[in-house]
Amino acid sequence: MRPPRTELPPRLAGWQARSEAVLDRFLPAADAEPGPLVAAMRYAVLGGGKRIRMLLAWAAADAVGAEPERADPAAAAVELIHAYSLVHDDLPAMDDDALRRGRPSCHVAFGEATAILAGDALQALAFEVLATDDVLAARPLRLLEMVVRLGRACGSSGMAGGQAVDLAAVGRQLDLDALAAMHRMKTGALIRAAVTLGALAAGADDPAVLAALDRHADHVGLAFQIRDDLLDVEGETESIGKRQGADAERDKPTYVSLLGLDGARAALEGERALAQRALDEAVAASGGRLDPAALRDLADYAADRRR
Amino acid sequence: MRPPRTELPPRLAGWQARSEAVLDRFLPAADAEPGPLVAAMRYAVLGGGKRIRMLLAWAAADAVGAEPERADPAAAAVELIHAYSLVHDDLPAMDDDALRRGRPSCHVAFGEATAILAGDALQALAFEVLATDDVLAARPLRLLEMVVRLGRACGSSGMAGGQAVDLAAVGRQLDLDALAAMHRMKTGALIRAAVTLGALAAGADDPAVLAALDRHADHVGLAFQIRDDLLDVEGETESIGKRQGADAERDKPTYVSLLGLDGARAALEGERALAQRALDEAVAASGGRLDPAALRDLADYAADRRR
Repeated sequence: MRPPRTELPPRLAGWQARSEAVLDRFLPAADAEPGPLVAAMRYAVLGGGKRIRMLLAWAAADAVGAEPERADPAAAAVELIHAYSLVHDDLPAMDDDALRRGRPSCHVAFGEATAILAGDALQALAFEVLATDDVLAARPLRLLEMVVRLGRACGSSGMAGGQAVDLAAVGRQLDLDALAAMHRMKTGALIRAAVTLGALAAGADDPAVLAALDRHADHVGLAFQIRDDLLDVEGETESIGKRQGADAERDKPTYVSLLGLDGARAALEGERALAQRALDEAVAASGGRLDPAALRDLADYAADRRR
Repeated sequence: MRPPRTELPPRLAGWQARSEAVLDRFLPAADAEPGPLVAAMRYAVLGGGKRIRMLLAWAAADAVGAEPERADPAAAAVELIHAYSLVHDDLPAMDDDALRRGRPSCHVAFGEATAILAGDALQALAFEVLATDDVLAARPLRLLEMVVRLGRACGSSGMAGGQAVDLAAVGRQLDLDALAAMHRMKTGALIRAAVTLGALAAGADDPAVLAALDRHADHVGLAFQIRDDLLDVEGETESIGKRQGADAERDKPTYVSLLGLDGARAALEGERALAQRALDEAVAASGGRLDPAALRDLADYAADRRR
């Protein structure tokens, strides 16, 4: 049996190491005005994180046969969106989390008003970064499609909608279908956008390949979420960078609360298998031209990670 | 002397009356999920407002010789952005306003968490609406430029940055240049985007015409803001739809606090004159093809309105 992929393989760790510089390139400079807002934006984005969404965008570009760098604006855009969502989710009126990535949350460090505005400005920046991709300007219709997909992933039928459903679910019992539907919106939509935008940035244009990659990302997103739920029970605050047991304390429905530990682990393996099958289908649809190695490693990492 | 333009002329009032249906067309349907989030989004956008930004986009399209309808997606996009910014600005951590357009603010009606998410989802929707303009898809590079301009208008060097500067200015003395710089970011950037996007949607492509329209919008934005400051002192809560005297109570620097009533009125006339001169320059740059009537009426309305 394959050992669990608890760490990224060296090539992907190298991409991850590059993420900070890529994001820095697209953020306002540290000395830009207004100082406190820009500082909060940079604090929210830089200084760590697993960069799963950037890695997925780069892996999708790599799978299509492009240099990962080709997907830098797409990767940065999805990560900026993710960072803004964490800032807003941590607010007192939302999840009220004082700790994020092992540091004070953005609103603890900069105040609530600045944190709200930093999130708002990061969302706007994501669309600007994506739409100013100078290489893809030669394929403007493709770039517009990417903007639309990002917009849908962020909106009321995507990430923001999922967070609304999540907040409404506190203290209520969701069934498994409702829980999966919530996660498909809250985290899945942006994870799918990461893969699809990376593939589109790299020139993928076969609808069957794109659809199979989208299914792959859908299952990776659910595997990632189930792993998160397991880590909230099994992990330690220090290694996961937020308080262990926070979900249970908050009486949020999770895969573990619905299925128990063993049931959640089995569901995770199910999503991993579906993710890999969808990836095989993408390879087949491409006539064998798609190189799935990096995406496969990331799917395993999403399912096996310890933080 | 020309009488003050306290009401919109009939043609523009007709456009204004159409705004509600246009916005409704681009919003999620009233029965869409998640119900509370969608209800908050629709509450924040529908049910009134002067629709100045939509009117500016339509007036710019009209000036270029297109049907105003050609700029519907652009007009809706800037209005969605404006509506989201009001929702976030009214939050307790920001301006803490319980009243907006004569009704409870979004967070009072729907709770803070839903209001934050509704604002977030409205911003994403604005970019989606703009980028899915099916007519402009035939001019995708132009449409991308519009997306980029909207992104810049919303971000840390535009609207969100201006709100951050505004919050930081409470209780401090700004000089006139700093006050104008703040308003140029906070409201001016989006007003300029409204005019520019409307003109671009209608096919304007002469850089000199676009630059003159941009200068026009810059001065209209400042005139609009000075009028706001005057109304905060002169107006009545009922007619302005928010508490009269709210700025002074909050110890916010305004044109009236810096210049006095007469000084602010003189500054308003100065901006009106500069706006009209820039519009004359746009007409000249177009070789007389630009029809400035609607934009001229709107500039006067921005400066003369009683609410």
